Amino acid sequence: MPGTMEPINIGLMGLGTVGGGVAAALSNNAEEIQRKTGRTVCLRRALVRDAGKTREPAPPAGVLTTNPEDILADPEIHVVVEVMGGDSPAGEYLERALAGGKHVVTANKEVMARRGASLLALAQSQSVNLLFEASAGGGIPIVGCLMSQLLANDIRSIRSIINGTTNYILTRMARSQTPFAEALSEAQSQGYAEADPTNDVEGIDAAYKLSVLGSLAFHQSIPHEAIHTEGISRLGPEDFRYAAELGYAIKSLAIAAAQPDGTVQARVHPALVPEDHLLAKVDGVYNAVEVTGDLCGQIILHGQGAGRDATTSAVMGDILNVVRFIDSAGPPPLLPVPNGRGHQVGNSIRPIDELSSAYYLRLTCADQAGVLAQIARLLGDGNISIATVIQKDTDPGSGTAQLVITTYPSREADVQTALAAVAKLGVVVSVDNLIRIEQ
Amino acid sequence: MPGTMEPINIGLMGLGTVGGGVAAALSNNAEEIQRKTGRTVCLRRALVRDAGKTREPAPPAGVLTTNPEDILADPEIHVVVEVMGGDSPAGEYLERALAGGKHVVTANKEVMARRGASLLALAQSQSVNLLFEASAGGGIPIVGCLMSQLLANDIRSIRSIINGTTNYILTRMARSQTPFAEALSEAQSQGYAEADPTNDVEGIDAAYKLSVLGSLAFHQSIPHEAIHTEGISRLGPEDFRYAAELGYAIKSLAIAAAQPDGTVQARVHPALVPEDHLLAKVDGVYNAVEVTGDLCGQIILHGQGAGRDATTSAVMGDILNVVRFIDSAGPPPLLPVPNGRGHQVGNSIRPIDELSSAYYLRLTCADQAGVLAQIARLLGDGNISIATVIQKDTDPGSGTAQLVITTYPSREADVQTALAAVAKLGVVVSVDNLIRIEQ
Ligand SMILES: NC(=O)c1ccc[n+]([C@@H]2O[C@H](COP(=O)([O-])OP(=O)(O)OC[C@H]3O[C@@H](n4cnc5c(N)ncnc54)[C@H](OP(=O)(O)O)[C@@H]3O)[C@@H](O)[C@H]2O)c1
Ligand SMILES: NC(=O)c1ccc[n+]([C@@H]2O[C@H](COP(=O)([O-])OP(=O)(O)OC[C@H]3O[C@@H](n4cnc5c(N)ncnc54)[C@H](OP(=O)(O)O)[C@@H]3O)[C@@H](O)[C@H]2O)c1
Repeated sequence: MPGTMEPINIGLMGLGTVGGGVAAALSNNAEEIQRKTGRTVCLRRALVRDAGKTREPAPPAGVLTTNPEDILADPEIHVVVEVMGGDSPAGEYLERALAGGKHVVTANKEVMARRGASLLALAQSQSVNLLFEASAGGGIPIVGCLMSQLLANDIRSIRSIINGTTNYILTRMARSQTPFAEALSEAQSQGYAEADPTNDVEGIDAAYKLSVLGSLAFHQSIPHEAIHTEGISRLGPEDFRYAAELGYAIKSLAIAAAQPDGTVQARVHPALVPEDHLLAKVDGVYNAVEVTGDLCGQIILHGQGAGRDATTSAVMGDILNVVRFIDSAGPPPLLPVPNGRGHQVGNSIRPIDELSSAYYLRLTCADQAGVLAQIARLLGDGNISIATVIQKDTDPGSGTAQLVITTYPSREADVQTALAAVAKLGVVVSVDNLIRIEQ
Repeated sequence: MPGTMEPINIGLMGLGTVGGGVAAALSNNAEEIQRKTGRTVCLRRALVRDAGKTREPAPPAGVLTTNPEDILADPEIHVVVEVMGGDSPAGEYLERALAGGKHVVTANKEVMARRGASLLALAQSQSVNLLFEASAGGGIPIVGCLMSQLLANDIRSIRSIINGTTNYILTRMARSQTPFAEALSEAQSQGYAEADPTNDVEGIDAAYKLSVLGSLAFHQSIPHEAIHTEGISRLGPEDFRYAAELGYAIKSLAIAAAQPDGTVQARVHPALVPEDHLLAKVDGVYNAVEVTGDLCGQIILHGQGAGRDATTSAVMGDILNVVRFIDSAGPPPLLPVPNGRGHQVGNSIRPIDELSSAYYLRLTCADQAGVLAQIARLLGDGNISIATVIQKDTDPGSGTAQLVITTYPSREADVQTALAAVAKLGVVVSVDNLIRIEQ
């Protein structure tokens, strides 16, 4: 460890959107950082792929490198800040950094979802800190809240809107009845969606983040592969219209909920949310996380889940906290609580089939008498009670009508089985959508 | 410090609403606490005023005491948890505890507002922790966010709804056009307001909390006496009606905002809030804090600002954090950042006269031609531009009408001066209300 008067040296891995923000904050706010931590903090090296790229502002001479050894093998670097992204090689670099006794700050949701447990164990054994506030909520301070302020709670559930791209698209679709493809390309041209939007619109990014948050909240591993994940591409403008009629907004939610039997239900999918719930009012690129605990009740954190500045806020907060703690001996204090429940990885995730939820179902049917009776019988046979029925958008040309049915809470497997039978009815043209309803 | 295998002993000061919750959590969650902190945590003593009171559940034999020395002079007590309330003797007890090398957790906003700076300095010099999460937002994790996750930000402003009683009353007034006195007695019978509601409805409780939050956010002392404080008793049902017509809700806000000249504007008063702002949707006993920082942008934390369980969540969180850190040597890591700006206490608070704000003004005037012209002239002379005018509720009996005027942003002193002149006009019966408008 550096002497108390010596500067703390940072090795930055990645100098893109977030890395650029961190480098700027380290240099522009040097005096504030000194005041807040009692230490001088210096950017010593910044790792990039392409040293020839024009960067604005240009990093000071000698800082840029394309060789990870310049950071990993430098004993004068005390803190590695990883903002490269991706599982590999970032994950291996972080292992090496921790093994070498360096503190680590990362914004990387994929690496924390895939290797979080082993990286944290390594940090603990090395008595160094591994902080990752930016990895699961961007600028929303949820990771620290779960690790620290809300630690005394038995967390019951997390329900969150944690993908800005998806929420931007859904907000557009809801406001202007824009079809999905159009809203997506609009988001791309505005810089809110990447050229390959798969990770965002298919819910993969949200599943990584939910894995990080769920692991912290429930003190057990929530592997992202075990999270039931659905994207938003099946939603049509009519779903937003019908949902609004029923008093709901449509949001893509990432949900993890403790079950009475000790398992955790974890899922990412579009959901109907009552329009007077605060989650229904999270618009555009804003994100929000609702946490329900036995003591704290329902807490909602609302803010920017991505973007250069907001993410820099979280990464810099972690850096400042590492620096403030760098002289304290003893076990690394900021590590999250290890899994105390003895669950095996993955064993404790409840399959989506076992979900109990209310459902919104949209079907295209023949526009003739007796159709609803046939469908209702099949649902009833499957133990599914109908709450409301809306018949809409009759199309005299094709002789079809849209039928929207909402159910009382039912078992997912029963609903899926009944729907498969409904789809085979002669009078049913297509089962167009199934959306879970959250209360 | 206790050996790593020995239990950490708690001395609880106060066993009322919050103290009862803390005692219950310590006993019911003993195993979880052990898992989360790696230590056994025991309630050793609980100080009360009246040892004869029936308590549910009854504390274990030997725990209850009416003698503070049983806690302060006991070297086996490592952490003092103060949930008595009031400035004295609580403040003196905390000084003694810290001076004696004990860690302290408190939920006491008054003591932190009045003596926070000196208590924190004492804790620092004694290398012990002083945590106070529950003191300024109940169950909302705002204190820790300002100290830790948002630490890298230059905080621009805090706008908050941090008194549950007031917000409950205002929500009732808005929903059912209930007059203030009626809504207050309803809140009292529901247990949401105390028999003497002064501290809550006059904004004093909110000013204590704002003092705590502002001092953390702006790294300087924000004495509660320097905070401009107005209660809610002047609001009438008609104000809610007119506000709604103009597209606003009325909320009691506690606001602290950094000014370009380095001073801080700090005030507690009713305000018009645009109805589509999330702060307008904070209803009943829920509270919310909006923080705006240079990096994080706008963050809103929404949750329960009071109540036994929510407050226990915050106090227990602090206790668990103290215990997790109890073995680490070095400077106490969780202390907030000391004032680095060298401001003198109180010197840096900008007087309310210098506020620039839009205003809502309600007047009762003679119902005759030319009245508005006279008023508008006086406002114009005072550099105040009118944004909207509503003339309402003509009373043919008395020959009067209600006039509601909103202004563009103007200087508070100019508005007060002009209003004094307006009040003297022969055609003006009374100036009934002035409410600031927040955007
Ligand atoms: N952007 C956000 O809003 C946001 C929000 C929350 C979390 N995050 C996370 O933050 C991390 C960074 O995101 P970003 O948006 O800043 O990414 P980015 O703009 O693509 O920047 C990535 C940076 O890492 C460098 N890099 C990538 N792979 C490398 C390799 N193998 N070796 C050396 N350098 C490499 C790149 O070098 P070149 O400059 O030479 O290409 C670039 O400087 C990701 O984990 C992301 O999930 C981002
Ligand atoms: N209640 C909330 O929702 C809430 C929320 C946030 C923060 N807080 C803060 O938490 C603190 C406690 O609030 P509370 O609602 O729990 O108060 P409370 O119900 O009135 O309980 C106060 C307790 O302290 C004891 N006590 C008071 N003065 C004493 C003295 N001089 N010597 C010995 N014991 C004394 C009382 O003893 P007896 O039992 O013998 O009367 C009682 O047990 C206050 O600072 C409050 O501002 C409360």
